[in-house]
Amino acid sequence: MPTPDRPVSEILTVDTSRVERFVERDRLSRSLAGAGDALEQLAARTCTGAELTGWLDLPERMLAGDLARIQGVAERLRARHDTLVVVGIGGSSLGARAALAALGYGAGEEVAPLDEHPVVFAGHHLSAATLRRTLASLGERDYAVNVISKSGTTTEPGIAFRVFLDELRRRHGDGWRSRVVATTDASSGALRALADEHGLETFAVPGDVGGRFSILSPVGLVPLAVAGADVHAMVEGARETLSHLLADRTAANPAVALAAARHALFTSGYTVDVLSYTSPRLRHVAGWWQQLFGESEGKRHRGAFPATCEIPADLHSLGQYMQDGSRQVYETFLHVTDEGARLEVPPGDARDGLDYLTGTSLATVLEAARAGTVEAHASGGVPLVEISVPDLAAASLGSLVATFEVVVALGGALLEVNPFDQPGVEAYKRNMFRLLGRPE
Amino acid sequence: MPTPDRPVSEILTVDTSRVERFVERDRLSRSLAGAGDALEQLAARTCTGAELTGWLDLPERMLAGDLARIQGVAERLRARHDTLVVVGIGGSSLGARAALAALGYGAGEEVAPLDEHPVVFAGHHLSAATLRRTLASLGERDYAVNVISKSGTTTEPGIAFRVFLDELRRRHGDGWRSRVVATTDASSGALRALADEHGLETFAVPGDVGGRFSILSPVGLVPLAVAGADVHAMVEGARETLSHLLADRTAANPAVALAAARHALFTSGYTVDVLSYTSPRLRHVAGWWQQLFGESEGKRHRGAFPATCEIPADLHSLGQYMQDGSRQVYETFLHVTDEGARLEVPPGDARDGLDYLTGTSLATVLEAARAGTVEAHASGGVPLVEISVPDLAAASLGSLVATFEVVVALGGALLEVNPFDQPGVEAYKRNMFRLLGRPE
Repeated sequence: MPTPDRPVSEILTVDTSRVERFVERDRLSRSLAGAGDALEQLAARTCTGAELTGWLDLPERMLAGDLARIQGVAERLRARHDTLVVVGIGGSSLGARAALAALGYGAGEEVAPLDEHPVVFAGHHLSAATLRRTLASLGERDYAVNVISKSGTTTEPGIAFRVFLDELRRRHGDGWRSRVVATTDASSGALRALADEHGLETFAVPGDVGGRFSILSPVGLVPLAVAGADVHAMVEGARETLSHLLADRTAANPAVALAAARHALFTSGYTVDVLSYTSPRLRHVAGWWQQLFGESEGKRHRGAFPATCEIPADLHSLGQYMQDGSRQVYETFLHVTDEGARLEVPPGDARDGLDYLTGTSLATVLEAARAGTVEAHASGGVPLVEISVPDLAAASLGSLVATFEVVVALGGALLEVNPFDQPGVEAYKRNMFRLLGRPE
Repeated sequence: MPTPDRPVSEILTVDTSRVERFVERDRLSRSLAGAGDALEQLAARTCTGAELTGWLDLPERMLAGDLARIQGVAERLRARHDTLVVVGIGGSSLGARAALAALGYGAGEEVAPLDEHPVVFAGHHLSAATLRRTLASLGERDYAVNVISKSGTTTEPGIAFRVFLDELRRRHGDGWRSRVVATTDASSGALRALADEHGLETFAVPGDVGGRFSILSPVGLVPLAVAGADVHAMVEGARETLSHLLADRTAANPAVALAAARHALFTSGYTVDVLSYTSPRLRHVAGWWQQLFGESEGKRHRGAFPATCEIPADLHSLGQYMQDGSRQVYETFLHVTDEGARLEVPPGDARDGLDYLTGTSLATVLEAARAGTVEAHASGGVPLVEISVPDLAAASLGSLVATFEVVVALGGALLEVNPFDQPGVEAYKRNMFRLLGRPE
C-alpha cells in the first residue's frame, strides 16, 4: 500500500528570488504564464514531441512492471559475478553513472576498490589506452556485461561490446550467454536479434522515452540494481514528485518557477547556465544534467550553454571568472542539505589559523562555503536559482531527476524547440562514416 | 649537453584557418598586431603583472636547480612508502593531476589500483563523505603526504592536512616528520614555520609564479616525480618551446596565431571557449586549462567562458548543442596524433554493422571521429582553432603547457586585464569566514 504523498515542499524546493533584480518584471511574468501553458500541454501530452513523453508515467509503469524483474536479475548477477561492465554511451551511460556516484558508490571507468559490487563503464570512448586499462583492471574478475543500445549499431559501444564479448567467449565458451544482459529495443534491431538468437536476458528500452530521459527505465535501473542501490525508492521518489509537478501550473510549482526564471534569464542575455553543486558525489549528476539540458534545448541556435562548477574545488579555477568575467553566466545552484557522512576538523598546528574550526563538522564548513558563494556571486552580478533537496538518498535523487526532466521539457517549449529530439547528433557520425569508408 | 632545439613545427602546430570566415579580416589583423606587441612586452617583461612572469624562465631555473633534488626526494619516497597523498587546491592540485592523467597514470581522489605508485588527491573539497572514502581506500598503506600551500592557511587544504597529520601522528608518532614534504613559501607563512620547526623536507613555491602557472615548479613536479613521470623531459620540452615562442612576434608563432584568433573570436561575439579533446587521458588537462584561462582572462567583465568537451563521449551529450545551439561557442580543438596504445576492432556479430571496421585500430576510428567532428562543427557554424601535438609523452606535454601559458598571457594583454592576478577569488572566502565566525 503506497504511503500518502508528502507536500512537494518537503521533497524539493526552488528559490528564484535572486533572479528578480536581473530581469524585467514583465518578462518574468510572461515566462511564468508560458511555463504554465507548457505544463498543461505536457501533462495533457499535447506538446511538441508528445510521442516521446513516456518518461511522464515511466515510474508508474516500472513499479507495475519491469522493476521486480530488474531486481531479480540483479540479485542473480550479484550472486554469481563480482563486477558489472556497462557498455553504453550518452543516455545509455550517463544516468546510471550519475546515480551511482550520487548514492555514494564509486563509478568510474576503472574498478573502484571499495565497492561491494563494482560497476565499470565502457563504450563511451574510442581510446585504446583507456580500454586496455579497463581490461587490465578487470584482471581475472568474473564480470557480467550489461550492453545498452537501442539499435545495437552505434559505433563506440558496438566496438567495446565486441571487445568484451571476444574476451567472455575466450574465457567461458558458451558461458558468455549467462554473462550478458542486453537492454535494447523491444522488438527490432541488431542487438535484439543477437539476444533472441542466443537466449540472452533482455530488458526493453521504452519506445516512447528518449535516451537522456531513460535513467528511470531499465537503461539506468539495471546497473543501479546490480550495484545494490534502492531502485524502488528512487522510482517511487520520482513518481511522487511527478504527481505534484504535473498538477499545478502556477509559480508555486517548483518546475514552473525554475523554467520561467531560466527562460527570462536566457532571453535577457544570460546564455551560459552553470550548474553549481557542493558534493563531489554530484559530479556525474552534473554530467547527466549537461546532456539533459544541452541536448534538449540546444536547437535552432537557441538555448543556454550548460556548464558545471564544483564548490569549493572549482571556485579555485572558475571562481574568478564567475565573480568578475563576462556577464553572460547565470547559476543553477544545487543544494544538498545533508550529505550523510560526518567528519570533524581535528586539532592541529595553530599557525594555520584554523583553530576556530576545531571540532566543527566539515558539513558546517561546506555549508558556509556554499552560502558565502551564493552571496558573493549574487552580489557580484551573477543571477542564480537555487534547488534544494534534503539529502542524497535514492528517493531524493529520483525526485531531483523528475524535476529536472519537467523543467527541461518546459524550457524547450518556451524556446519553441522540440525538447525530445536530437537531430544535430548525427552530423559528426555521417562524416565519420564517410572517412572510415562505411559501405553504402 | 643539451640537444639542439627542433623547429617549433615539429613540436606543436596551430591551425586557425577555420576561424577566418567567422571574423572580419581587419579585426583579425588588429588582433595579430596586438598579440605581437603583447609578445614583445611579455618577453621583455614590461607587460602588466610582470612581477608574476617567473614561469617564463622556470624550466631553465628548474633544470639548473631544484629538479635534481626533486628527483632525489622522489626516489626516497618511492622506496620507503607505497602511496603519495597530495593535499592542495586550485593551482596546487590541478597541474599535477592533469599531467599524471595525461601521461597515463591513474589520478583520482581514490587510489587507482593499477598504479605502481598511486597518487591520491585531497584538500580540494569539503566533503566528509569523500574524505572518509579516501581515508578508507588508503587503509593500511604506508603513505607520504605532499602538502602544497603557499600560505599554509587556506581553509580546504588546511583542514585536510590536519586530518592526515592527525592520522600520521597516531600511526607513526614522530615518524610523521619523514612522511611529510611541504611545498610552500620560501621563507614565510604558517606551513614554512611548521616545516622549519620539525625539520621537514621542503620545496619552495617560486614567489614570481602564480598558482595556475606553477605546474613546472616543485608544486607540480614533486608529485609527478614521485609517481615516476619523466619530469626532466617535461621541463626540457617546455624550455625548448618557450625559447621558440618568445622569439617571434609574427603569425608564424603558434602562440601569437592562437591568441589573435581567440581574441578576434571573442570580440566578434563568440564568448564560450570549448576545449575539445579526443583522449580520456586529457580530461584533467582540460580542468587545468579551465583554471588557466578562466582565472587569467575572467576580469573586468571580459573573457570567454572556458568549457570542455570530450570526443566522442560528450558528442552524445553536448554534441547537439555544439551543432545547433546558440551561436556563442568557439572550439579549441586539442589533437593528439598518437595516443600510444594499440587495440584493434575484433570480429563480431555482423548484424552490428561494424564488420567494415574489423581489424581496424581504435586510433583510426578515433581519428575519423575527430576529423568528422571538426568538419561538422565548422560547417555547422562553430569557429574552431586546432592545436596538434604528436603524442602524450612528457616532452610534448611540457610543450603544450608552455604554449597555453604564453597564449593566455597574450590573451589577457589583448583584453587589457592583468592575466596574473585573481582578485575575485577572495569574495566567497570573506563571506565564508564571516559565516563561520572567524576571529578578527
